[in-house]
Amino acid sequence: MFSPLIDQLIQSLRVLPGVGPKSAQRMALQLLEHNREGAARLATALNNAVEHVGRCPQCRTLSEEALCSICANPRRDAAMVCVVESPADVIAIEAAGTYSGRYFVLHGRLSPIDGIGPSELGMDQLEVLLRSDALQEVVIATNPSMEGEATAHYIAEKVKAKGLKVSRIAHGVPLGGELEYIDGGTLAHALSSRREL
Amino acid sequence: MFSPLIDQLIQSLRVLPGVGPKSAQRMALQLLEHNREGAARLATALNNAVEHVGRCPQCRTLSEEALCSICANPRRDAAMVCVVESPADVIAIEAAGTYSGRYFVLHGRLSPIDGIGPSELGMDQLEVLLRSDALQEVVIATNPSMEGEATAHYIAEKVKAKGLKVSRIAHGVPLGGELEYIDGGTLAHALSSRREL
Repeated sequence: MFSPLIDQLIQSLRVLPGVGPKSAQRMALQLLEHNREGAARLATALNNAVEHVGRCPQCRTLSEEALCSICANPRRDAAMVCVVESPADVIAIEAAGTYSGRYFVLHGRLSPIDGIGPSELGMDQLEVLLRSDALQEVVIATNPSMEGEATAHYIAEKVKAKGLKVSRIAHGVPLGGELEYIDGGTLAHALSSRREL
Repeated sequence: MFSPLIDQLIQSLRVLPGVGPKSAQRMALQLLEHNREGAARLATALNNAVEHVGRCPQCRTLSEEALCSICANPRRDAAMVCVVESPADVIAIEAAGTYSGRYFVLHGRLSPIDGIGPSELGMDQLEVLLRSDALQEVVIATNPSMEGEATAHYIAEKVKAKGLKVSRIAHGVPLGGELEYIDGGTLAHALSSRREL
C-alpha cells in the first residue's frame, strides 16, 4: 500500500523496542510529513553512534571515549567496584545518586545454554581490576534471576580468592511497596534476609 | 551521564512521536547493545526516505514514484475521488477494503490562523483533477473537526460549481459503540443525520 521506500522505513523502525507495525507506520508518516530534518538528524546520530561507540576499556560500559566519564573521574572512589549486567543498570544506580565508586559492566549474565561463559562477560578484564591496589570491596548488583544469582556466585568466589570484601545489593520489599501486593518470591527473600534491629 | 554520541542519539530518537526521554534511552541502549545492524539499516532507510520520497503529482500522497501505486493502477475507479487530510487517512480507508476509487490528499485542512489557505492544500491540483472527463463524484472524508468541516464546505462549493456530484462520509455512532458511552457531539450528529428506514 506504501511505496517501497516508505515500506522499508516502516520495517526498519520496527527494530526499536516496543514499536509494532502500527506505531512504526505512524512514526514514518509523521517524520516524512512534518519533520524531515529531525529524521535526517536521527539518521546521522544512528550512524555516528553505531560507528564510534564502543566499550570503555576499563569498565566495559558503552562509550566512544578513551575512558568513560566515570572511569576518567578522579573523584570516584577507587576502593569500590559495582558489578552490573548492563549499561542501563549503571544509569539506574547513578540516578539513585548515593553510589560514588566505580562500575564493571558484564553485558549479560552467565548462561551456558546461550553460550555465554566467563570470557563473554569480560572476566579477564575484571581480574585486571581486582589486582588494583586501591580496591577494597566489590558490590555485586546483577539481577535477582536464576542466571543473575549464578553470575553473582561465580564472581563472589573470584573476589574472595583475592582476599577482597564482596557484597550483594539487598533484595526485598521496595520502598512504598505494600506487602499484600508483593510477589511470594520477593517476600520469601525479604524474610530470609531479615536484619536484627 | 552518557558519552556525547549516545546522548545525541537519545535526543535524536525523541523526534519520534510518542517517544519520551525514558523510551529514547531504552531504544538507544538496546540498539547499541544488541542490534547495531538494525540501527545502521534504520539510518539508511531514514536517509533514503527523506531524500527520495516526495508527493504523487496527481493525488499528493507520499511516494517516491512517478505516480503512486493507487494512481498508477488502471483498475481503480476513475469516476470517484476521495479527498482526505493525510496519507494515513488513505491507508485507513484502504484497510477498510471497500473503496475502489482514487484519492486526493490535502496534507492539512484550512486554517487561516496557521497560514494554511487553499494553495497550501493543493487546490490547483484538485482543480486539474476535477476537469477529468471520467470523474463523476467527489467524496469528502476530512475529519469532523471545525476546520475539517470548513475545508469540506469549501471543497464542496468548488465541486458543485463544476456540476459534479459531491458527498461527505457519514459521521455517527461507530459499529460496536454503545450509546451510553458516546460523546454528546457525535450523538447529536447521529440524530440530525438520521436516515428513513
